[in-house]
Amino acid sequence: MKRKGILIVVSGFSGAGKGTLMKQLVHSYDNYALSVSMTTRNPRPGETEGKEYFFVSRQEFEEQIKKGGLVEYASYCDHYYGTPREYVEKQLEKGKDVILEIEIQGALKIKKQFPTALLMFVMPPSAEELKKRLEGRGTETPEVIAKRLRRAAEEAEGIENYDFIVINDRLDECVEEMHKLILAAHETPERNEDFIREMRKELEAFIQ
Amino acid sequence: MKRKGILIVVSGFSGAGKGTLMKQLVHSYDNYALSVSMTTRNPRPGETEGKEYFFVSRQEFEEQIKKGGLVEYASYCDHYYGTPREYVEKQLEKGKDVILEIEIQGALKIKKQFPTALLMFVMPPSAEELKKRLEGRGTETPEVIAKRLRRAAEEAEGIENYDFIVINDRLDECVEEMHKLILAAHETPERNEDFIREMRKELEAFIQ
Repeated sequence: MKRKGILIVVSGFSGAGKGTLMKQLVHSYDNYALSVSMTTRNPRPGETEGKEYFFVSRQEFEEQIKKGGLVEYASYCDHYYGTPREYVEKQLEKGKDVILEIEIQGALKIKKQFPTALLMFVMPPSAEELKKRLEGRGTETPEVIAKRLRRAAEEAEGIENYDFIVINDRLDECVEEMHKLILAAHETPERNEDFIREMRKELEAFIQ
Repeated sequence: MKRKGILIVVSGFSGAGKGTLMKQLVHSYDNYALSVSMTTRNPRPGETEGKEYFFVSRQEFEEQIKKGGLVEYASYCDHYYGTPREYVEKQLEKGKDVILEIEIQGALKIKKQFPTALLMFVMPPSAEELKKRLEGRGTETPEVIAKRLRRAAEEAEGIENYDFIVINDRLDECVEEMHKLILAAHETPERNEDFIREMRKELEAFIQ
């Protein structure tokens, strides 16, 4: 039976290493596709169209909203960010697991539209370690670090909505761990409806 | 943080190979304990007290029911079958994952009392294969085989209540697969409440 792709939503604290994890996951295994978001903000130096984001005008973005071209979208600091539907659905159709990074509100919207979406929450091994990582960047002011920690405390309130928590201690181990969790998620009844339906049909035929 | 044991309920079609799988799992990995049921039926040749079952009188069984000594019990062909609570709780306390084989009604009762219990449903790769295995034993009459297939069709109705389906094609692969699914199940938020609570407390302390 053809393997169906699942949509994987990755959330987690800023500083937990989500981005690196996801890139490594796509790089290490060939069943993943990374969803690229659409945004109205300007590209930063080094960012490439279609790699970090699809950069579009406000008008183009709003047209996408109108015609249902986005799985979800949000507005943040006067700019739109959203997930283009076409890419996601095409990759799922091909049997790829599509990964996308998004915060909790978006994650919950995704889950409504894609009931078999898998929600994963990435965390550092401890709050102490999170603080150390944020400070270790050396580029942030104490105010920014304090703001990120407050944001983390808020996000921590929603962890119960996720299917799995992923502790990012050592990157390579964590990537492998994420992969195993995703493989496990493929073995739930709701992600194997065709197989179960087929099994029931065959059993019914035997007992006629 | 101390690893908490989880209760693992294994159900599945007669002929799917549950018993062998569970024994192999306990043999291959050291984090499992096999729950032994209590029954009022007589031991069959080759069965040993405390291994296949704890054999007790009807009166003793009913005393256990009265004092809450059983996690669940059911009556089948005029005999009681039940899961002794003490062993289960002691092993979970030690951090062991306790496996028990039980049909769907019992599985649902367990889930009510142990909300973090993991329910796994073992199936052969196809209904055709199930029929072949039942016939292959060579010891069953066509009537018994037909009865088992009818029972399988009934049990298949409840699959959506389970957390994972496990396809038993090759025994050794299936044992490894079950082990991986159980490891994954340890990474859900509801099975890591202490860790999450600790993380929240630490974050709150930082932002005071």
